[in-house]
Amino acid sequence: MTSEHCTPTVAGATGTLYERLAAELAEDIEQGVHRSGERLPSVRQLCLARQVSPATVFQAYAQLEARGLVQARARSGFYVAAASRATPLAAPQAAIAMPEVQQVGSAELTFALLQSTRDAEVVPLGSAFPSARLFPFDTLARCGARAMRRLRPEQITGALTAGDAGLRDLLRQRYVQQGVRLAPDELVICNGAMEALNLCLQAVTRPGDIVVVESPTFYGALQALERLHLRALEVATDPRDGVDLAALEALLQRERVAACWLMTSHQNPLGAVVPAEHKAALVQLLARHGVALIEDDVYGELHGGLRRPPPAKAFDEAGLVLHCSSFSKCLAPGYRVGWAAPGRYAAVVHRLKTMGSLATSLPAQLALAEYLLQGGYDRHLRQLRAALSAQMSRTRRQVSRFFPKGTRVTEPGGGYFLWVELPEGIDSLALHRQALAEGISTAPGALFSADRRFNHHLRLNTGHPGDARVDQALRRLGELAGQALRG
Amino acid sequence: MTSEHCTPTVAGATGTLYERLAAELAEDIEQGVHRSGERLPSVRQLCLARQVSPATVFQAYAQLEARGLVQARARSGFYVAAASRATPLAAPQAAIAMPEVQQVGSAELTFALLQSTRDAEVVPLGSAFPSARLFPFDTLARCGARAMRRLRPEQITGALTAGDAGLRDLLRQRYVQQGVRLAPDELVICNGAMEALNLCLQAVTRPGDIVVVESPTFYGALQALERLHLRALEVATDPRDGVDLAALEALLQRERVAACWLMTSHQNPLGAVVPAEHKAALVQLLARHGVALIEDDVYGELHGGLRRPPPAKAFDEAGLVLHCSSFSKCLAPGYRVGWAAPGRYAAVVHRLKTMGSLATSLPAQLALAEYLLQGGYDRHLRQLRAALSAQMSRTRRQVSRFFPKGTRVTEPGGGYFLWVELPEGIDSLALHRQALAEGISTAPGALFSADRRFNHHLRLNTGHPGDARVDQALRRLGELAGQALRG
Repeated sequence: MTSEHCTPTVAGATGTLYERLAAELAEDIEQGVHRSGERLPSVRQLCLARQVSPATVFQAYAQLEARGLVQARARSGFYVAAASRATPLAAPQAAIAMPEVQQVGSAELTFALLQSTRDAEVVPLGSAFPSARLFPFDTLARCGARAMRRLRPEQITGALTAGDAGLRDLLRQRYVQQGVRLAPDELVICNGAMEALNLCLQAVTRPGDIVVVESPTFYGALQALERLHLRALEVATDPRDGVDLAALEALLQRERVAACWLMTSHQNPLGAVVPAEHKAALVQLLARHGVALIEDDVYGELHGGLRRPPPAKAFDEAGLVLHCSSFSKCLAPGYRVGWAAPGRYAAVVHRLKTMGSLATSLPAQLALAEYLLQGGYDRHLRQLRAALSAQMSRTRRQVSRFFPKGTRVTEPGGGYFLWVELPEGIDSLALHRQALAEGISTAPGALFSADRRFNHHLRLNTGHPGDARVDQALRRLGELAGQALRG
Repeated sequence: MTSEHCTPTVAGATGTLYERLAAELAEDIEQGVHRSGERLPSVRQLCLARQVSPATVFQAYAQLEARGLVQARARSGFYVAAASRATPLAAPQAAIAMPEVQQVGSAELTFALLQSTRDAEVVPLGSAFPSARLFPFDTLARCGARAMRRLRPEQITGALTAGDAGLRDLLRQRYVQQGVRLAPDELVICNGAMEALNLCLQAVTRPGDIVVVESPTFYGALQALERLHLRALEVATDPRDGVDLAALEALLQRERVAACWLMTSHQNPLGAVVPAEHKAALVQLLARHGVALIEDDVYGELHGGLRRPPPAKAFDEAGLVLHCSSFSKCLAPGYRVGWAAPGRYAAVVHRLKTMGSLATSLPAQLALAEYLLQGGYDRHLRQLRAALSAQMSRTRRQVSRFFPKGTRVTEPGGGYFLWVELPEGIDSLALHRQALAEGISTAPGALFSADRRFNHHLRLNTGHPGDARVDQALRRLGELAGQALRG
């Protein structure tokens, strides 16, 4: 196993026009406007229709080709690739009919997994983070140095405790772009989204309370529940559309629920996005029951389409949505800068932050504020999305090629995770251990539920483009799964 | 009220020989080797006895003069200053005979106070932080820039979750200098000592448990107890020697105590230092009862004597001491880098850290590691201690001059707080409100106990040398206290 990495190829590193065109065409393909095997509009047609240059069209098609959506045929033109629709990979099945309230205690396994993904020698298919090579650390370091040299001593006490005023203003402006108007003092800067989510959870619960989570759910949510002595109630979750509102309503009628913790856009591990109209209905449903929604939105910026999906927070009128996000997945992993916009619970969250860790590290906050001010963030995001999107398509193709017949896999519109349902009878925890012994990490399905129901599932990280070891590791993982099925 | 600051005068900014001499003489004076009004050894005598130059002796005496310990008399020599022993300021009285277990709920007042000390226009006598002007922010910024430019992507996942390996090594070396050998993986870097303390507290308790704290105690400890639904039991605490071991033993026999949270060196607010032999006895007592000690040691480096007092951790053989500290009070406020050395609870604390906030911000950690490596920390600490020590003496003199007769005040050997016991009948909470209306903050005694027993006490911050507003504010505060007494 070598540890050699290449610099990731970022599709569309310059310009924006062709990227927009590519995103529109991708959306058309996904929505069936152009069907599998169908000829796409010619370069000439697109130049006329969109008033763009031939170079722009060629670049857009090249990007779609790299993502596996489009096939170029010599002297004939561009065609919708077969794999993009006529895929042998069905979607995994949505689970659970009659969920029970669960005591949470999955920490052991989760920690062993986290430990294994810290080893740089292990191929990080089980990791929760995208490749650190995708992020502009040099630029961030320069921004940090500039901002720290300008630091006035008064800023230090001023930033106690809700965060640097400049960064909070910049974040508020980004919320406005997403259709969300925050109260002036609503934002609390935290030590990553993880702290923000924990504080929000504590603000709306007492030990022993029941909290609704998705199924499968992010293991960090289960850990947070365990830490606060809360009980989990898993709700049926569609691999494409997220939380099942009818199932949720039934749970709310049956149990006394203190809060929901949901990832509404590019959910980890499914990649599901709750459609905008469902989000509005979700917020209304919870408001009728007086139940708070902790909205974990750390993947919202990593959408594959043209615009980011709106957060549920955009539909909140009662102040019951506590929206949390961070820069850790899209700009600055390791900086540990996240935030909460906790609606009517802002003062409580602010107090819990003060009690728990006083304030968030200033150098990281100032570096990020300076970076946002200089204006390169959106360009970085476009490049990052293109790179992640291409690598996800590539990984899906590898899974379809190497994994045993009967394997099902999600087709997310963003993020960097695939949720794989292996044929029944394959124990994904055993597979995980076997692969780890060969230097390949995976995230077995058992991590993603309090009752370990996902025993033949696993989550694959598709966020490491340019890591030469990944293709080989996927091939080997498929072989091991095949052996497990036959053995 | 102007907001004009001068650059603080740091006594003994260069060299170390005369500082050591000054510290030794100060210790002799404190221990009564030289008594009030007595003539001190002549310059010539000291030159011979210590094998130093006359300049060194003059510098040492000048420093002691600045601290108010020594008086120069023209053509006669140096004398022990009257104020240093024959002070009109008696020590405050130790409190409580029969403590009751308390539900904690003092957050309201504490938050209002913290809010007021964030306002740069208010004279910060109630602040918990020393002046930001005492810290080498420029050097830290340069160190941070250098370290961040060298950042390798692997470091980011490597630093998840116990902290940067380089910083942890450097901290371990400093522990060795203090006579403490840590286990290789014991240290967990946290978002300030506040997070470290909270995690340690959670590691050794369950909701509803009883935790012993000092009386008076740091309000942050009360907040942490409230946050985790714990109950407080206050133990008698001597203003000079800290926790009363006999009283503690009685409590341990009477109640089922889950943990003690004690500040063993330069306690906030008393400034008390538990003598080394008491620390050893304390650790043994708790080991006999199987009770964990959370040792809050954030002021340990700010000693006025030659050596820092050993932490209780130095006497721990059972692994029951969870030692917590940070750089926030002695090097880098706002960076939010602290740590826990949690003994046998290291793995639990590490997990709680992962669950609660994943990891600590990397830019701040790398800046501090780089600063420690370049070797200026101990020189900075010497300068800081001298500046704080001089300002504390100055503040005691102002209190003795301006505060009403009958006022008692501590005489701490380090830190930057004075605990003032006003004559009975003065409501220190009312005084606090009155002073705040005039742009002066104080920390009223009510903050420092779950049952608000310290109603005619207040804590004064003496950590703002060079702030021209402080003397005037102390004079005004004394006047207001006098009026309250007469009114």
